[in-house]
This record gives sequence, structure tokens and C-alpha cells, in this order.
Amino acid sequence: MATSPNIAKKNSVFIASSLDGFIADQNGSIDWLHSFPNPDNIDMGYAEFMAQIDAIVMGRTTFETVCNFDMEWPYRQTVFVLSNTLQQIPSTHRNKAQLVRGSVKEILAQIHQQNYHRLYIDGGKTIQHFLREDAIDEMIITTIPILLGDGYRLFGELPHPLSFRCAESKIFLEGIVQNRFCKMKK
Amino acid sequence: MATSPNIAKKNSVFIASSLDGFIADQNGSIDWLHSFPNPDNIDMGYAEFMAQIDAIVMGRTTFETVCNFDMEWPYRQTVFVLSNTLQQIPSTHRNKAQLVRGSVKEILAQIHQQNYHRLYIDGGKTIQHFLREDAIDEMIITTIPILLGDGYRLFGELPHPLSFRCAESKIFLEGIVQNRFCKMKK
Repeated sequence: MATSPNIAKKNSVFIASSLDGFIADQNGSIDWLHSFPNPDNIDMGYAEFMAQIDAIVMGRTTFETVCNFDMEWPYRQTVFVLSNTLQQIPSTHRNKAQLVRGSVKEILAQIHQQNYHRLYIDGGKTIQHFLREDAIDEMIITTIPILLGDGYRLFGELPHPLSFRCAESKIFLEGIVQNRFCKMKK
Repeated sequence: MATSPNIAKKNSVFIASSLDGFIADQNGSIDWLHSFPNPDNIDMGYAEFMAQIDAIVMGRTTFETVCNFDMEWPYRQTVFVLSNTLQQIPSTHRNKAQLVRGSVKEILAQIHQQNYHRLYIDGGKTIQHFLREDAIDEMIITTIPILLGDGYRLFGELPHPLSFRCAESKIFLEGIVQNRFCKMKK
């Protein structure tokens, strides 16, 4: 199947970060994500975001973390798992996930060929990998206003700077701020 | 002069950062701060912020940078310069700045004794130093939505996490976001 050039392709990030830019603390814990009381369990736009998504792209680490969650499989969309070490998707998840390999460009071509165009790029390493290839169009970053001091960073080194613009900003739970950044066209 | 305990003391930060948390790029440059066209030269709340400030606290590096600016001295408030190496303030700036030494607690006691209570804490190292002592009450962070990949970080390591809340969020120039974070009371 050929890719249709007139379908709008978009690679989006939807992630929570500490105020100092960490997505997990130094022990890999994300308990601090829940440091703000959320009695009504509001989703801060997650369902609305996911409704616009055709497929999810994540790294092996994130995939295995989600597989091990003590809950139902959380995605209705096909998940593409980036891995050079995983030989195959475990049989329990073969109807949910596909393995992809290669450069970002090759991976995107494989996914677009299957007619998935609006992609949710998830997991710290995968996001950094896509950013290094300038392959992220939109980032919705929910900042939990805690300074952790150390941990696993959302952003990493880049071959050259990347310019976005903040298109939208919302405050949730009287303290959490969510900013939506769109890539500036060159 | 004894400090008056009923005067509200506040230590504030007002700084610009890249989206990945840098205050200067790897060459120490801040040219990217001006990557958004600002034809009307709006100040993004700086004058309004400064109107609430009694004195400025900065490190030697920031002080020397400001001294070397090819412009008039930019502050009407007294500047307190933190330095363990500087022996005295240069004679050209002795009516503008005072040298302070000691722990954050000792420095603040010296400044409060002179009846300055609403302080602007400026400069990367000084901000990090004050945060390590949990001595920052408010941070107004203007995020320039550029990913630099490397540089001098706004935030550093901490002895323990610090919780803030985002009290306000504004978008300027259709792309720059400014968030105001207030320290959570314990």
C-alpha cells in the first residue's frame, strides 16, 4: 500500500515532566507524578489527545513496563515497539503490538505504509531519538512543579537546536501547568 | 537595626530558560533569547516585577557581566554581590553594590537587617545555591521554546525535592510561555 501524501502526518509527544525536566527520579520512580491531589481523577486532556492518535510508537523499555502493569492493556491503537534487541513481540501481545527496526525515517515509512499517520511517540529514549532526527511536530508537556534535583531527563543532546512555539497553556489542579509546543516550520 | 518580623519576606527568581532548561548555550551565549521577533520590545512583565523588588542578590559572575554591559547601570535597587573571591566592589560601583559573604541564612540576615525584604535572586549559580537551602519562594520562568541540547542549566542537584505550584501562566509573542511558580508551604 502506498502512503497517501495528502494525509496530514503528525508525531506527537504527551508526557509529564518535573519542573527541572525529569520524567523519572534517580530510582526510576514516578510516584512524584501524583504529588498533587487529584480527587476527581481528571485526565488533563489525555483521552482527548488519544482520540486523535492512530498508533503509538514506544521503546522496548516502555513497552515492557506497560506489559507488566497490573491492569488491562491500556491502548486501543496499534503499538509499534522500537527495539534492536527484542527478537519478537511476546505471544501474549502479538495482536496488540508490532516490532519495528531501522532509522527514524525507515520506521516512519513502515508505519505510514500501514496507514497510521497521527502518531504518539512515547518513552524517554524514543522521544530523544526522534528529536535528534527532528521528527517531532508537537509536544504536550505536563509540568509537575516539583524540583527533583536528579533523575532521567526528558530532553537530551541534539545535533542542532530545534525551535517550537507554545500554542497553548493550561493550569490543572491549581498548580500543574500543561504547555503545548508546536514545531516551527523552517 | 533589628529586622521587623511582620514584614513579608520574599525571595523571587525572574529568569528566561530554554525549553530544555538551559539559561545559556554551551558557549555561554544567550543570543537564542531573542529568537522570537519582539517588534514592540515588550518586557514580559519585567518592569512590573522589578517594581515589587527591594534589592537584588547576584553572584560575582553575573555582577561582572552586568558591569561590563555597554549601557547605563540597569538597577535602581541596591545589589548584593555574593563572592568569596572578590575582596571589594570596584570603586566605580561602590554606590550601587555591596559585597556579602557567608551561608544563605547569614546573607539573608545581613540583607533583611538593612530593611530589604523583597529580593530578586539572580544568576544561575546563585539561584541553585538558594534552592539547595530551600530559600526561594517564587520563580517566574519565561520559557523560550527552543531545545538547545546542551549548555548551562537553570536547575542543579538538590539535597531533597522541592514542591512548588504553578499560580499563573501567560503566553507572549504567540509562542513564549511564562509560568509563575510559588513554593508550597510545608
